[in-house]
Amino acid sequence: MRTIALIVEYDGTNYCGFQRQSSAPSIAGELERALETLCGHPVRLVAAGRTDAGVHATGQVVSFTTASEFPLRRLPVAASALLRDRHIAVLKAVERPEGFSARFDALARTYRYCILNRPAPSPLERHRVFHVSADLDITAMRAAAQSLLGTHDFAALCGGECENQSTVRTITRLGIEKEGDRVHVEMTADSFLHRMVRITVGTLVEVARGKRVPHELAELLQSGERAWAGFTAPAHGLYLTHVLYAQSI
Amino acid sequence: MRTIALIVEYDGTNYCGFQRQSSAPSIAGELERALETLCGHPVRLVAAGRTDAGVHATGQVVSFTTASEFPLRRLPVAASALLRDRHIAVLKAVERPEGFSARFDALARTYRYCILNRPAPSPLERHRVFHVSADLDITAMRAAAQSLLGTHDFAALCGGECENQSTVRTITRLGIEKEGDRVHVEMTADSFLHRMVRITVGTLVEVARGKRVPHELAELLQSGERAWAGFTAPAHGLYLTHVLYAQSI
Repeated sequence: MRTIALIVEYDGTNYCGFQRQSSAPSIAGELERALETLCGHPVRLVAAGRTDAGVHATGQVVSFTTASEFPLRRLPVAASALLRDRHIAVLKAVERPEGFSARFDALARTYRYCILNRPAPSPLERHRVFHVSADLDITAMRAAAQSLLGTHDFAALCGGECENQSTVRTITRLGIEKEGDRVHVEMTADSFLHRMVRITVGTLVEVARGKRVPHELAELLQSGERAWAGFTAPAHGLYLTHVLYAQSI
Repeated sequence: MRTIALIVEYDGTNYCGFQRQSSAPSIAGELERALETLCGHPVRLVAAGRTDAGVHATGQVVSFTTASEFPLRRLPVAASALLRDRHIAVLKAVERPEGFSARFDALARTYRYCILNRPAPSPLERHRVFHVSADLDITAMRAAAQSLLGTHDFAALCGGECENQSTVRTITRLGIEKEGDRVHVEMTADSFLHRMVRITVGTLVEVARGKRVPHELAELLQSGERAWAGFTAPAHGLYLTHVLYAQSI
């Protein structure tokens, strides 16, 4: 048996998310079907990030085991050809030692959130960026972000399904870059709680619009109250861009 | 009567091109309909560039005359709202002196052609970039581009409908930039012949793949033979990005 890791890009627009659900097509379901065609046996994927409905990825990492001898260097092009109409592509395939898990061996995940800040929406990026027409105070946004860096209990920035586990996470980077009319929020953490990036971005946008002051963020974390945080920024501005492992993929 | 100029962005994917045709929806047709709703009378647009089917724009400029008092500063947001489902947005609206024409007063047009150069296609940019999996020699591409700069007869790089007019044009810039796995070809000229950017890019890609040597380009121009030029690069990698006027819009 070989253990294979893949770097995967996808357009999450028409999916219920990464994880299989009975109700709608999932990224995992489509990927597993393509890999089963190539490997000739059932495939069960493990993913570094279980992205929500509508969330995209340019650097998702998945792993699986296979008895197949399918040549690794041909796998990205072959799988991408099968997945072309599904808006999923395999960018890279590497072999990993037995027992490797794309989920449990990941040291850090990086997400990027893209905001288009101008009066008119963008037809070319309509499912790719969150359009905010109001002026954004990037300096205030950056000041607020400082409170989130490091190890904290992020219960206040967790949507829904966080009850049974620790809500302590470590954010090692939270960069806010402005390039023309684009604002990119890039977050790296050991792992993220459910909807944590989107709630963080929604809260930072409220700061940037002057609806909150930056120092509220520290109090918000201490409160642990989701209801005190901002709105959940829409899924279509979010991208899983990179997953860090001890040995890079 | 007021003369208004608009900067327009659109996703050309589902259109027959900018110009009205009886067979399929056009950018001009959709834009005129929205402006007629706002102005309350028939509108006839003049455009700086008559983009083909599938070609996009981030900086198309159009002009029209109106007797309407519709406030100019509200026009971009109002028109963009009407055009949202049509994948067209109005980014800016300015008043120009009587007689101004977005087409005849344009001093130069800039087009950008986007190539994705990696083994796998991009699901996220499937209607936005031309995917080339073969290795591209950018140095050779740049050397070939040198022959095209300046004033020449570009008949060899004109697709189809160029019979009745001069095919002499002046290219003032032809930049080829590589950023990661992206190659951007940016061309500025007084105006362009039909499909000139796409045939130029197709020919340069053949140079970059080693199928032609760079110095062939000068001979190609001298021949005036379209049949000697390269393939027509697909429409979906092409963007009209900027139009230059004596007074910037």
